[in-house]
Amino acid sequence: MNKSADRIAGKRDAGKQALEVVAGNGLIDRRALLGRGVMLAGAMGTGIAPSAAGAESLTDGPWSLEIGEATPPYQLRSKFEAKVVRTLSNPNNEPRNSHARTPHHLLEGMTTPNGLHFTINHGGIPAIDPEQHRLVIHGLVKQPLEFSLETLSRYPQVSRVTFLECGGNSAPMFSPVPLQETVQALHGLVSCAEWTGVKLSTLFEETGIDPKAKWLVAEGADSPHLSRSVPVKKAMDDAMIALYQNGERLMPGNGYPMRLLLPGYEGNMNVKFLRRIKVVEQPAMSMYESRTYSQILPDGKAYRFYFLQEVKSFIANPSHGMALQGPGLYEISGIAYSGAGRIEKVMVSADGGTSWGQAALQEPVLSKAFTRFRMPWRWDGGPATLQSRAWDEAGNVQPTRAEFIAVRGELTKPPPILSFPNQHCNSITSWGVASNGEVKHVYA
Amino acid sequence: MNKSADRIAGKRDAGKQALEVVAGNGLIDRRALLGRGVMLAGAMGTGIAPSAAGAESLTDGPWSLEIGEATPPYQLRSKFEAKVVRTLSNPNNEPRNSHARTPHHLLEGMTTPNGLHFTINHGGIPAIDPEQHRLVIHGLVKQPLEFSLETLSRYPQVSRVTFLECGGNSAPMFSPVPLQETVQALHGLVSCAEWTGVKLSTLFEETGIDPKAKWLVAEGADSPHLSRSVPVKKAMDDAMIALYQNGERLMPGNGYPMRLLLPGYEGNMNVKFLRRIKVVEQPAMSMYESRTYSQILPDGKAYRFYFLQEVKSFIANPSHGMALQGPGLYEISGIAYSGAGRIEKVMVSADGGTSWGQAALQEPVLSKAFTRFRMPWRWDGGPATLQSRAWDEAGNVQPTRAEFIAVRGELTKPPPILSFPNQHCNSITSWGVASNGEVKHVYA
Repeated sequence: MNKSADRIAGKRDAGKQALEVVAGNGLIDRRALLGRGVMLAGAMGTGIAPSAAGAESLTDGPWSLEIGEATPPYQLRSKFEAKVVRTLSNPNNEPRNSHARTPHHLLEGMTTPNGLHFTINHGGIPAIDPEQHRLVIHGLVKQPLEFSLETLSRYPQVSRVTFLECGGNSAPMFSPVPLQETVQALHGLVSCAEWTGVKLSTLFEETGIDPKAKWLVAEGADSPHLSRSVPVKKAMDDAMIALYQNGERLMPGNGYPMRLLLPGYEGNMNVKFLRRIKVVEQPAMSMYESRTYSQILPDGKAYRFYFLQEVKSFIANPSHGMALQGPGLYEISGIAYSGAGRIEKVMVSADGGTSWGQAALQEPVLSKAFTRFRMPWRWDGGPATLQSRAWDEAGNVQPTRAEFIAVRGELTKPPPILSFPNQHCNSITSWGVASNGEVKHVYA
Repeated sequence: MNKSADRIAGKRDAGKQALEVVAGNGLIDRRALLGRGVMLAGAMGTGIAPSAAGAESLTDGPWSLEIGEATPPYQLRSKFEAKVVRTLSNPNNEPRNSHARTPHHLLEGMTTPNGLHFTINHGGIPAIDPEQHRLVIHGLVKQPLEFSLETLSRYPQVSRVTFLECGGNSAPMFSPVPLQETVQALHGLVSCAEWTGVKLSTLFEETGIDPKAKWLVAEGADSPHLSRSVPVKKAMDDAMIALYQNGERLMPGNGYPMRLLLPGYEGNMNVKFLRRIKVVEQPAMSMYESRTYSQILPDGKAYRFYFLQEVKSFIANPSHGMALQGPGLYEISGIAYSGAGRIEKVMVSADGGTSWGQAALQEPVLSKAFTRFRMPWRWDGGPATLQSRAWDEAGNVQPTRAEFIAVRGELTKPPPILSFPNQHCNSITSWGVASNGEVKHVYA
């Protein structure tokens, strides 16, 4: 154990005990840290630290000297937050798909605000009149039924906080060289919200289901009529027709006025603008399930119907593109989630995986939801490689990148050409910190 | 027990068991209902029910026949949701306070979306430049310190889901006659969000605190420099300097770029635009604590420093101003919360408090957060009086209105004149349902 990393020179309070190091290169036990003073203001006063306050500290800004702005019926964020946006793959709305990625490095907690939830749409965002929209359930049912939004609102509803992730999230990690991209570019196709709606099983109680039924085909009302096949077993488990997102009606890009929600399953299956569920014996082999979301393996074969988003984590702060402001104490913070249930633990390394310390998990830890993890770190100004690794309650562990590509393959040259494999990457992400504080994406 | 309410005439599936009634006038056991079909589509097909689906059900709307809209960097809600807004007390921003009330009857789940979180501001909404803003902690501390937003971001952060409620929420309930107002007008000054920031105790570890300190005075950077006194004990417990609201930076009306968060304490104490915390021996007796938020009792005396928002609940659906669309099954849904901890149970009555059934609580049930409750109800078309009553884990029970006014007093004539008492009303709310389906605010 590095004695210098084990101790903060506490000039201000020499009686305090040494901070307990839990892993190499400066990872500190959070419980030991809290209640003892993190001492940014004391002897560690390099980099960004609070300054001694004096009389000059209480001068008024211009906003303290005038009446402020009017209160709006629906409030929007500060103009000073204009840089906090989703990055767009198709800003001019050309006739192809459009990605909008969540800026995880600028957010906190487990909730993705509705304005910044990731979206992918394949024919633009339809402006659906909710009073005219209908959901039809037909096929192998006893009684085909048509539901309006008002009808659906009469049924018992449920809420759950759950993440949604595109099967192609983190696809840049298949590159043979680490792409110099932000956490938003690498992992921005996952978000988390509280969804409320009607369980699909409740509606199937209404229509009845033929015992021969094994699949359902869900179809959207957008112009591509995107459709995906879903096992009836999932539909009867925790599938929901979602009507609300973080308390208000769904955002237009997230499926307004209703979408299929399949907690833990790849995003594309959670069909938006849902207008039809046909109950059938065999999957439809629609384009998105037979082509786009097939995973090509190194031997040329492909996984068929690989739905689950597996256990994953990444550090959002610090991350690629940031610059640490000098040696001192930092909080490493990131997100973990698993389509198989609750996150059990997250380990963090500052030395590229040589040693690991257990991160604090923010309560409540919910099944198939974002779990924020945090770990205090004393950066000594030397090189560091930051990683996080998550375990879920089902016993799954997030693989290293080497473990992952050994099974799933790797691209022969860097994207962005359309290339395979590009699906369901859940490997560990590594951020390299240089002595000048710059943070870069690295493979380690 | 009413036999006709105990049974749904199940023509479509005569083998199904009778629905279990849990209280008078049609309250139904939720567990018995789920998994058995709520049968809106069957014999109960009066009012709004799904219709039998045929070939005509799958016609395309215009949005299915054209490329949709472009994906924006920050997404906003559908134009069809324009009616879902906060109601404003001061839309022209005259030089007085401005209330914006949350439309609970149009929302779902436990999260209030950021656009619709209630706000009260006393000098408009200041447009604070976050790079210039500072928080100063001084007074009875060992080392006065000044924090920028960037400095604060270096400290360990925590998240918690918690409600905020104005001490004057539900003030219309002091009226001697039931005001014919919506749930938004009656109870719209309470909302719930996930807040993330730095615990105040962490910052006091930095500054140190003189043992003589018993209070702190928190002051905002808005033009009124709103200030409130807070016991040091609360500050060292769960107080937070909140920086994020539902994942993104605070909304301007909610205190951007930082506010004091005192979970469970009346909203006004959660000082917004926080620029100063002075640690002192005695409370400041500022205007808001010595005048506005004093509760005048029937004997002319007043409570001093009554901070806690007590256990409370109200039904949001159905509620005043709505009209039920004929007899049949409905879901009664509402919100419960307590400043003293978790909600333990919520009971619902459909007969004005003669009999009660236990509502389902949506998980997760979190301390000092909104808890959504739900109860299925079969309305037989006759008069009904709907009520909810909440208990918290500390053993507190929500009072009836009669119990409440016996202790806290009642106005001699209806508002809206500025009048006392008007604080901390947590009594039961009653909605009367007439035979024509109209829902009105009543006292029962």
